[in-house]
Amino acid sequence: MERIRTSEISSHVGTRIRVAGWLHSFRRLGGITFLVVRDGWGIMQAVAESEAEIAPLLAAEAGLESIIVIEGQVIGTAQAPGGCELHDLSIEILSPISEVPPIMLNKTKLNAQPATLLDHAPVANRHPQRRAIFRLSAGIIAAYRRILTERNFTEIQTPKIVAAATESGANVFQLDYFGRPAYLAQSPQFYKQIMVGVFERVFEVGHVFRAEPHDTTRHLNEYISLDAEFGFIDNHTTVMALLRDVIGFILNSLSENYSPELELLHTRIPTMPAEVPSIHFADAQELILKLHQVDVRGEPDLSPQDERWLGAWAQQEFQSDFLFVTGYPMRKRPFYTHPDPQCPEYSNSFDLLFRGTELVTGGQRLHLHQDYIVTLERAHLPIAAFDYYLEAFKYGMPPHGGFAIGLERLLMQLLGIQNVKLTATFPRDLNRLVP
Amino acid sequence: MERIRTSEISSHVGTRIRVAGWLHSFRRLGGITFLVVRDGWGIMQAVAESEAEIAPLLAAEAGLESIIVIEGQVIGTAQAPGGCELHDLSIEILSPISEVPPIMLNKTKLNAQPATLLDHAPVANRHPQRRAIFRLSAGIIAAYRRILTERNFTEIQTPKIVAAATESGANVFQLDYFGRPAYLAQSPQFYKQIMVGVFERVFEVGHVFRAEPHDTTRHLNEYISLDAEFGFIDNHTTVMALLRDVIGFILNSLSENYSPELELLHTRIPTMPAEVPSIHFADAQELILKLHQVDVRGEPDLSPQDERWLGAWAQQEFQSDFLFVTGYPMRKRPFYTHPDPQCPEYSNSFDLLFRGTELVTGGQRLHLHQDYIVTLERAHLPIAAFDYYLEAFKYGMPPHGGFAIGLERLLMQLLGIQNVKLTATFPRDLNRLVP
Repeated sequence: MERIRTSEISSHVGTRIRVAGWLHSFRRLGGITFLVVRDGWGIMQAVAESEAEIAPLLAAEAGLESIIVIEGQVIGTAQAPGGCELHDLSIEILSPISEVPPIMLNKTKLNAQPATLLDHAPVANRHPQRRAIFRLSAGIIAAYRRILTERNFTEIQTPKIVAAATESGANVFQLDYFGRPAYLAQSPQFYKQIMVGVFERVFEVGHVFRAEPHDTTRHLNEYISLDAEFGFIDNHTTVMALLRDVIGFILNSLSENYSPELELLHTRIPTMPAEVPSIHFADAQELILKLHQVDVRGEPDLSPQDERWLGAWAQQEFQSDFLFVTGYPMRKRPFYTHPDPQCPEYSNSFDLLFRGTELVTGGQRLHLHQDYIVTLERAHLPIAAFDYYLEAFKYGMPPHGGFAIGLERLLMQLLGIQNVKLTATFPRDLNRLVP
Repeated sequence: MERIRTSEISSHVGTRIRVAGWLHSFRRLGGITFLVVRDGWGIMQAVAESEAEIAPLLAAEAGLESIIVIEGQVIGTAQAPGGCELHDLSIEILSPISEVPPIMLNKTKLNAQPATLLDHAPVANRHPQRRAIFRLSAGIIAAYRRILTERNFTEIQTPKIVAAATESGANVFQLDYFGRPAYLAQSPQFYKQIMVGVFERVFEVGHVFRAEPHDTTRHLNEYISLDAEFGFIDNHTTVMALLRDVIGFILNSLSENYSPELELLHTRIPTMPAEVPSIHFADAQELILKLHQVDVRGEPDLSPQDERWLGAWAQQEFQSDFLFVTGYPMRKRPFYTHPDPQCPEYSNSFDLLFRGTELVTGGQRLHLHQDYIVTLERAHLPIAAFDYYLEAFKYGMPPHGGFAIGLERLLMQLLGIQNVKLTATFPRDLNRLVP
């Protein structure tokens, strides 16, 4: 008999079917035993009305998380989760488990400390709420790929072992590359720009590595970056328009295709306004002075408090969870940032704030070889180390720009999760290399 | 005027349009100038019949690879590549280029040594033949994801920084993780198995790192692995059936959707037989004795010559480019390999040969906790180092198995490319960390 997934049971009412999975819960009430089976897609209840039916479980001393196969008759019933359950059971045990799992997997709400969840991730990740987070993560990536592929972007894979730090010398992991030092890529920035010279429009979903020595709820030392970069833009506003569509598509896609997961997590996905409000960095500082009597003019960046104020303003003024801040001062942006031609101390860059916290950074990049030479010299950076990168510009690059979305941070903010580590299956932090 | 991609020109005959891209070639014949523009999707010809039309190019001394924008009238003509060309040109230069590129990008056939192509990858990758290879690479990944998603597999991302070598202590890159040693993942094997405990069916498209100190045409130190792993299998034959469908789907998808790329590379994609022939390892050794009078019985593995003989046999006997060899001896397979229950010195594993060369390895894994303990002890491996991995088995794992496809090797073999490094955009080898 072919195996049926628990998520498909409701279309088999009245027939005898076969399910397989983990023994999710087991309760005896008088002469009746309620079993719940969990498979890769969901859970379903099975009801044994005789001792004979559950005899194989008892004989094998098979406890929770045992791998079992159950055949039974599908009965529609309003009381059962999902509206139906199995009766007249025939049970087979594939892997009996006797030890009690370190995490209670069959409580609707996952009740454990973050450290416990992370230490026991191989088991904790089986909890329906953990699975929901990771399915949403896969959903974000799938939607990201779909919209960019539709927009004629080509997916690329860039090297993760690199000869030099990407953006600065700090916070990179060093490795031994056949006796020479090498580094783990902090970002695909240089390579995605080079690949604009090849395909014009490229994106990457890949690991990036940051050796930041901070153990906080906001830091991961390895995470997934959703990068995009494309040519023949007017300026950073072309990039912002794409980003708006990309985030909007992701949000819609989650709302439409992941209702069960969102229900399990008691979350609603926000919507993206057709027009995202936007404010220039300098105007944002003026606004903060006006609204809060705090003078941050002259500061080269926004503080978390500034961002919260701006987020509240966007909410109140435009009923928008999202706000673009544009034109960050050049001195706080990386060397490849394109200046604002009208006002070169400001840049053609932006941050996208979500509910008062930075979600995505992006902008226009320099595209003329000579501009790179001047900028690198001014920054006292060693031009020779950038030779391979500069070769792309030496032989023709269009005006271009892009952005990078941190997958885990996006999940954290969308789902209101307090600790970014809980958005990854097996996070890496200052003290955690296993599991 | 909105920009049109070169690949879309033929639907605009008779109208005035705008294209933008790289100046791919420039030839003056008498009073007429033929320009070819290359954009991210293809090339198109533009014809200037007056000096005035090309005056901006001459004034800027804009050579090949300059970034230009051309407006013109689309004229249908059999002689032009793609069947149409632009006339009555108005040309604008975005980035003039004066230096001659180190690679001739406008010759149909790419004529350069591999070392030159790799040293100058930022420019060489722009050649239409190089682009075709990378588009096919993206096409393989997209098809891989599509078929597995349709089969209810969930995409995962597993850690690339790990506490210990995955399969053995050899050939791993070591890095400094905040003062402690850590390693780059050789494969997602352990994590994908753990995640079978979560989602049952998982796949990953990700970087793997191998510190093999060989500089050959077959080695890459960083490559993309297409991994899959799934539970509730009967044995390795369930895995083989999936692999057949996956490779078959990839091949069909390339044939159907990538004709221009395949034409540029003068390649035809093979087809996957409905039934892939299969031979047991022991029978393969007997066959080699019978056909070639060479006695390799007792050898623990097949040599490249053995594989070529078997490939020729599959071709002759079954007209198949593909052949499964099953049941490799346990002593040459990794510790998590499931033995053949009938004959425990052989394994429930397989290799898929393509035209006499190994293409994919896979098989069934152990799934009982106790079997892992016994196997690790027998192999004198430190059980404590595997604690996090063993936790998955301690709390219930179904019979499962999977495979790993090396993306670059698959491309190399499908396209008949002699050097695997030429299938990657920016390959890493013993001596190459840039570009």
